[in-house]
Amino acid sequence: MIPRTGIGIDVHPFADEGSGRELWLAGLHWPGERALAGHSDGDAAAHAAADALLSAAGLGDLGAVFGTSDPQWAGASGARLLAEAAARVRAAGYEVGNVAVQVVGNRPRLSPRRAEAEAALSAACGAPVSVAATTTDGLGFTGRGEGVAAIATALLVPAPHQG
Amino acid sequence: MIPRTGIGIDVHPFADEGSGRELWLAGLHWPGERALAGHSDGDAAAHAAADALLSAAGLGDLGAVFGTSDPQWAGASGARLLAEAAARVRAAGYEVGNVAVQVVGNRPRLSPRRAEAEAALSAACGAPVSVAATTTDGLGFTGRGEGVAAIATALLVPAPHQG
Amino acid sequence: MIPRTGIGIDVHPFADEGSGRELWLAGLHWPGERALAGHSDGDAAAHAAADALLSAAGLGDLGAVFGTSDPQWAGASGARLLAEAAARVRAAGYEVGNVAVQVVGNRPRLSPRRAEAEAALSAACGAPVSVAATTTDGLGFTGRGEGVAAIATALLVPAPHQG
Repeated sequence: MIPRTGIGIDVHPFADEGSGRELWLAGLHWPGERALAGHSDGDAAAHAAADALLSAAGLGDLGAVFGTSDPQWAGASGARLLAEAAARVRAAGYEVGNVAVQVVGNRPRLSPRRAEAEAALSAACGAPVSVAATTTDGLGFTGRGEGVAAIATALLVPAPHQG
Repeated sequence: MIPRTGIGIDVHPFADEGSGRELWLAGLHWPGERALAGHSDGDAAAHAAADALLSAAGLGDLGAVFGTSDPQWAGASGARLLAEAAARVRAAGYEVGNVAVQVVGNRPRLSPRRAEAEAALSAACGAPVSVAATTTDGLGFTGRGEGVAAIATALLVPAPHQG
Repeated sequence: MIPRTGIGIDVHPFADEGSGRELWLAGLHWPGERALAGHSDGDAAAHAAADALLSAAGLGDLGAVFGTSDPQWAGASGARLLAEAAARVRAAGYEVGNVAVQVVGNRPRLSPRRAEAEAALSAACGAPVSVAATTTDGLGFTGRGEGVAAIATALLVPAPHQG
């Protein structure tokens, strides 16, 4: 009954002003904050968490599982992709222990809404998801305010009565 | 008794020459090496380790726990923040399994002092902390020598007699 | 019997056109794809996996273990370094649970050869190695196509009859 570890990084650039997009990050809507770009909703935190789950179970990655060619997932929210990733991991015979996500960027300030973000992602995942944040003190693309990165680890355990 | 995983990244830029700061990294003082900047001592390795612990326990992050507004932690060393993060994780009902930290940057060369760094951070944490290092072969802000990044994972287990 | 977590990042820049090098990544040869530079074969995915194993066991890092001065490892493939790292981790009393690697970059496209890469790295490691991929949507050195990064986590457990 050895647990399994997984890792996921995701990056999205900020959208141009006037893109008409709104910011979704860590399962939350952030009215008035600059949006992230992407084919999806740009929720780097939810995507990193989903990729960490898939990675731990050896099920590939978001691109492979929810490829842009599948219309079912076109425009799906990050929280929905996280929920589906968790479902696939469970279908593969694992229980989700926890997921830990760290958001790296200047904006938005996650701290005032951390508990809310953790509740949203934990509900999507069906297991505890912790959300933390940091900056890179002006260095790199996150420091220059070009976008947001997120990194996540996940821990799975084989389900008790699988097989 | 499923373990919990956590992740933490921290980045600090090098301080300007003549800043009067000294380099602290991985719990060690590095006389003669260029210092890292920051409100704190700039010890990216200790900070990443502390963030990984808090992340695994779902206790937030360094900014939330030791916010700059709390004078008690103003100027606290990275090792002291790591010790306090470990204490809070234990108070929340977890045992610290281990922490693994990788330092990413051109300078200082950690290898000759790796055992010393592991001893310093393990003493602060009260559990094994491994320290490793790599470079990015000239790419990105670490490759250009603008600063140092560190990344850490932590593994916790629920304490046997909690609750 | 608490498991141990480890982390490893590795970065290699693309080689100049006309370098005569060939691309090796995730244990596979990629004919026709632009090569990665480095003293080694430049296999960032295999190197990150090996560093995660060493990190989890507290055995240092690739630079310390396979330092460029040791002719035995000069020119060794990433898969060979991964196999040797796994052997050293086992000799230190650990069983390898799994390793999860994520490749970050624009090229090559890993998805069509993911199963093949997982088979190659798992064979080298003697334990499951998952391989996933993502891009950074044009941001940072990976987004500009300057190189490839890889990040890995590893999980070890103490071997049952050690000591």
